[in-house]
Amino acid sequence: MTQVEAERLVELAKRRGFFLQSAGAYGGVSGFYTFGPQGAAMKRNVEATWRDRFAIQEGHMEVDAPTVLPEPVFEASGHLDGFDDMLVECPECGESHRADHIVEDTETGIEEAESLAPERIEEVIAEYELVCPTCGTGLAGQAIEQFNLMFETTIGPGSSSPGYLRPETAQGIFIEFPQLAEYARNQLPFGVTQIGRAYRNEISPRKSLLRVREFSQAELELFIDPEVDEPDLSAVGDVSARFYPAKAQDCEGGGVIETTIQKAVDNGIIADPWIAYYLGVAAEWYQRIGLDMDRFRFRQHRPGELAHYSEDCWDAEGDVSDPGKEPDWIELGGFAYRADYDLSKHDAHSEEDFTVFKQYDDPVTVEKPTVDPDMSYLGPEFGGAAGDVADALESLAEDTPDAFEGEDVTVEVGGDEYTVPVEKTGFAVEEMTESGEHITPHVVEPSLGIDRALYTALDHAYREDEVDGEERTYLSLPPEVAPTTVGVFPLMDKDGLGERAHEIADDLREAGFAVTYDDSGAIGRRYRRQDEVGTPYCVTVDYDTLEDGTVTIRDRDSTDQRRVAVEDLAATVEALVAGEETFATL
Amino acid sequence: MTQVEAERLVELAKRRGFFLQSAGAYGGVSGFYTFGPQGAAMKRNVEATWRDRFAIQEGHMEVDAPTVLPEPVFEASGHLDGFDDMLVECPECGESHRADHIVEDTETGIEEAESLAPERIEEVIAEYELVCPTCGTGLAGQAIEQFNLMFETTIGPGSSSPGYLRPETAQGIFIEFPQLAEYARNQLPFGVTQIGRAYRNEISPRKSLLRVREFSQAELELFIDPEVDEPDLSAVGDVSARFYPAKAQDCEGGGVIETTIQKAVDNGIIADPWIAYYLGVAAEWYQRIGLDMDRFRFRQHRPGELAHYSEDCWDAEGDVSDPGKEPDWIELGGFAYRADYDLSKHDAHSEEDFTVFKQYDDPVTVEKPTVDPDMSYLGPEFGGAAGDVADALESLAEDTPDAFEGEDVTVEVGGDEYTVPVEKTGFAVEEMTESGEHITPHVVEPSLGIDRALYTALDHAYREDEVDGEERTYLSLPPEVAPTTVGVFPLMDKDGLGERAHEIADDLREAGFAVTYDDSGAIGRRYRRQDEVGTPYCVTVDYDTLEDGTVTIRDRDSTDQRRVAVEDLAATVEALVAGEETFATL
Repeated sequence: MTQVEAERLVELAKRRGFFLQSAGAYGGVSGFYTFGPQGAAMKRNVEATWRDRFAIQEGHMEVDAPTVLPEPVFEASGHLDGFDDMLVECPECGESHRADHIVEDTETGIEEAESLAPERIEEVIAEYELVCPTCGTGLAGQAIEQFNLMFETTIGPGSSSPGYLRPETAQGIFIEFPQLAEYARNQLPFGVTQIGRAYRNEISPRKSLLRVREFSQAELELFIDPEVDEPDLSAVGDVSARFYPAKAQDCEGGGVIETTIQKAVDNGIIADPWIAYYLGVAAEWYQRIGLDMDRFRFRQHRPGELAHYSEDCWDAEGDVSDPGKEPDWIELGGFAYRADYDLSKHDAHSEEDFTVFKQYDDPVTVEKPTVDPDMSYLGPEFGGAAGDVADALESLAEDTPDAFEGEDVTVEVGGDEYTVPVEKTGFAVEEMTESGEHITPHVVEPSLGIDRALYTALDHAYREDEVDGEERTYLSLPPEVAPTTVGVFPLMDKDGLGERAHEIADDLREAGFAVTYDDSGAIGRRYRRQDEVGTPYCVTVDYDTLEDGTVTIRDRDSTDQRRVAVEDLAATVEALVAGEETFATL
Repeated sequence: MTQVEAERLVELAKRRGFFLQSAGAYGGVSGFYTFGPQGAAMKRNVEATWRDRFAIQEGHMEVDAPTVLPEPVFEASGHLDGFDDMLVECPECGESHRADHIVEDTETGIEEAESLAPERIEEVIAEYELVCPTCGTGLAGQAIEQFNLMFETTIGPGSSSPGYLRPETAQGIFIEFPQLAEYARNQLPFGVTQIGRAYRNEISPRKSLLRVREFSQAELELFIDPEVDEPDLSAVGDVSARFYPAKAQDCEGGGVIETTIQKAVDNGIIADPWIAYYLGVAAEWYQRIGLDMDRFRFRQHRPGELAHYSEDCWDAEGDVSDPGKEPDWIELGGFAYRADYDLSKHDAHSEEDFTVFKQYDDPVTVEKPTVDPDMSYLGPEFGGAAGDVADALESLAEDTPDAFEGEDVTVEVGGDEYTVPVEKTGFAVEEMTESGEHITPHVVEPSLGIDRALYTALDHAYREDEVDGEERTYLSLPPEVAPTTVGVFPLMDKDGLGERAHEIADDLREAGFAVTYDDSGAIGRRYRRQDEVGTPYCVTVDYDTLEDGTVTIRDRDSTDQRRVAVEDLAATVEALVAGEETFATL
C-alpha cells in the first residue's frame, strides 16, 4: 500500500475497532496499542490457528509463564549484556534515535547498519554529515550509546531484586526445561509452545503495529537429539514458497527462488532439515491466516546477522507496500537452529541439570583409566603442590593413559614439572558398564510475531472497489480469522422479522459461529459495516423468510446473494467456511 | 483441605503440569508461577467459559489493552497515591512484612487491619509486642511505611516517561472510553470486557497461586445511565447462593443466608439490582467451572472496607480449607457499583470528553441567564480586577439571576466588593432549545481473578479414594474445564491396535475435543494418570474393537465402564459433556 493507503488502513482499524494507539486521551504513548473488539477477536482467531498448527497438530505442550522474570535468567540468556540497540541523542532537541536506522534511512548506501560497530556508525555519521530527523541538527561527534531494550523493574520492596519484562517468551520455557522434560517422560524430541506478551523498550517505535514496545509472540521450542532426530519432511515437502538465500542478497541481480520445501532442501537452499520443516509449516499457516503468498518470502540471515551459536537462520517476511510500488519487507518471524546454546547457558548459570539421560540401545562397556594417588607419598614429597599434582594426574590419566606405561610419570603444575613413580599414582584401567549418557538437547525455534502477522493479514486483505456505483472498502479475510463469521440482519425490526432474525442468530451462535446482529440503518449500510470488518457472510431475514423459511445469504467478496433454507443455514455456512463449498456453486 | 492436603495438591500440580513456581532453577522468585501444559489448558478453558458467559451471552465487547501504561493514567485513577500496602521492616534480619498481616495473624483479635491507620498499627505492634515472623525480633518502634504495589518501569531512553504494569485490567478500558462509546454507537448501556495479566508487587506473596505478583483477571465494565438502565433480574432471579451481609459480620452469631438472587433483592440483602444481577451470573459461572457451592459465598464489604465512591460492594469468596475444618475464605472476585468515579477522574485529568450525549425524548426549552459585561466601562472603573469582576458576574447570573433585578449588582472578588450598574452587565435571559445533555455513565464492575478461580476449582475437585484396593487421587473437574476431555489408549501397541486408536483419537480431535493419546505402561496406570489430571473419559481400544467395532469408555469419578460403538463415540462424548446424557444411564 502507498503511505496514503496504509493511513487509510490505520484509520479503518481505529474507526472499526481493530486497533488504536493506547491512552490517546493522555496524548498517547509510542509503541503501545489497544486491540478493539474486532482486533481482539481477530487476534484470538490468529492465535487459535497457530495453536492448532504448531501445538495440537504437532502434539506439543503449551505452557503459560510469567512476563516478569528475575535478573539471573537474563544474565544466563545473554540479554542483560547483549540485547542492545545503538542510541544517538540529538545535541540540540534532545530526541533519542536509533543510530543504525539513521544510517540506513539516508544516502549512505548501507542497508544493514545493525551489525556494524558503534565506532563505525559514529564514523559514518560524521562522514555523511547525518542529521537529527526531528530538528535537522548535525549529529557528527555525538557518542553512540548501547541501550538495553529490556524494561526493568524491581520485585518486592527495596532494590535488591531487579526483574525484567521478558523480551521473548522463549526464556520462560528454557528455564523450566528440567520439569518440562519430566512431563515429556524424558523422551526426545519434544516441543513446548507459548503464546504471550513480550516487550522491547524500542528507542523509536514506528509504523503502527509493526514496531511496538509490547507485543504478542507465538514461539515453539523443539528439543531434539541432534544425532538421531529428523523431521518428517514429506508432510510439508510439497509446500511452495519464495526463498531469498544469503548468497542472492550479496550479489547484484541475485533473486528470490520460488520452489517447494523438498526441492529447497535437495538443492541446498535450506541446509537444516528441521528449519526446512518449520518453513513449510509456517508457509501454510501464513497462507491460512490470509497472507498473499506473492508478497511473502523467507529470507536467510547473512553471516553477519547470525548469532555466533546459530548455524542457520531464516526470517519470514511480508511486503506491506502498495502492490506495484517498491516492496517494503517487514520481519514476521524467525526460524533458528540454536544448537545447545540456551540449555547449556542455563545449565552453567543455574543449580539444575539441563540435560536428558539418553539410554543406549545396549549397555556399553567402556575402559576408564583412573588414578588414586598415594597422598602419604605426594604430601611429604611435594608439600603445598600435592593436591594440584593429584588433579593433574587425574586429567593426564583421562587424556593420555599411555603416559602411565613407564616407571615414572611427569606432570606440569604452575610451570613446574613434578615426576611421580607410577606405582604411587594408583593408576588403573577399570571396565565400566554404561546404560546411557547425559546429553544437552539442541533447540529448533520457530518464533512468530502475532501483531505483525495480524497487521500484514489486514494489509493484504484490504480492498477498495465499487458496488452499485458506490465506493466500497472491504477486508477479504479468511473466514477462520475474520472477527465475525456471519452478520444477521432483519430487513426491518417489525412484523416479527426482528424476533426471527434473533432466533437465527442464536442458532448460528449455538453452532459455534461468531455472529453479529444488526438492525440499525439501511441494509446496504449494514453490509458496508460488515464488509469493513471482513465478515465473510451476511444473512438477511425478510418477509419471504416468514412465508417460505428461506433467508438471503450474501458473499462479502463478490457481493453475490443466494437464498438458503433456514434449516440448512448452519451447515451451509460451515461448508463455506471449511472450503468444502464455494459461493459460486451454491 | 488440611495443610497436608493443600501441599499434596501443590505437589500434584507441579508433578502433573498444572502450575509450578517459576525459575526454580534459579531458586525461584516469590509470587510468580508458570502454568504447565495441564494448567495452561485448564486456564484457557476457564477463560473461555468466562468469555462465553460475561461477554458473548451478554452481547458485550472484548478488548485487549497493553499491560504497561503511562503515569498520567494512574495519577487519574488514584493508584499512584493510594494503591499501597503497609510495610514493616525487621530491624534485625531486614525482612519486609505486611504490617497488617502481622497484626491479623497474631493474638490481637483484630481481623481486618488493612483499614487501620499506620499510626494505629504501630501502636498495636508495640502494645502486643509483635515480632518478626522470620527471626522473632520485636518490631515495636519500627516505622510503618506505605509501599506502592505497582511495578514501575521506564518507557524509552532516559527517565522522563515512567510507566507501570497495570494493577488491574480495568484502566485499559476506562481510558479508551471515548472510542469504545463510538463502537457502541453512543448507546447506553454497553459493556466492555477484558481478560489479561495484572500485577501487584506484593510485599510477601504466599499461599501458592492465591497471593501472587502476576496474575490474570477477567473484568467487565458495564457503562449505564443510572437514571434509566435496569438489569433483567428475571434471568438470574432463581439462582441460589450464600450471602454474608455486612451487618451479619458485625454481630456475634450473625450468619450466612442461603437464598435466591430475587429474594436477596426483595429482602434488601443486596441493595443495587445491577450488583444482584452479576452476583447471579457469577454464581452460575463459579458452579460451571467446578466450585462446590457449599464452600462458596458472597460477602458484602463493611462500611470501613468500602471505597469512598462505592455505594455497595460484594466479594465472591471460596473456602480452600479441608471440609470439616475451620473455613479458610479467600477472595475470588469483587462486584462494585463504582458510580461515575472512574470516568469523571479521566475526564478531569485528560484532554478528552468521557461523557455520552443523552438525547431527550423531546427537545427541552430552557431559560439561560447570561451576561455580556461592557468592558469599556469595567476596565477604566476597576483596572486590573475588571476581568475577575466579569467572571464573577457570569457566575452570579448562573447561580442567582434574581440579583440582577435591581439597578445595581454587587460581586465579591478577592475579598473586595465591586458594584456594577445592571445595564453595564449586559444581563439577559435567553431561551435555548436543548435536544439532550452530556452525562457521565456510571460503572458496574464485576472483576474476577482467573488464577484464584482455577486454584479453588482444583481444590474443590481434589479427591482421594480407593479403587481395587489401591489408593487413587483424582480431580473431579467439569468436562468443560478439564485440560483433556478424552484419553485414548490402545490395549497394547501391536496387531493394529495402535493404528486404530490413533484413528479414533484423530476423529475425536476433529470433533473438537481435547484428546490425549497414551500407549505407555499398564492400562491401570494410564487411567491413574488421566484421573490425576481430571480427564473425565477414557477410551480403550482392544481386540474386540477390531472385531465388533466397539470400544470401552470409562467414567473418571465412578470408574464405571461401558462399551460403545466407535461410530457413536463422538456423539456419546458430546452428550456426556453437555450433560444431556449421564454415564449411569448410558
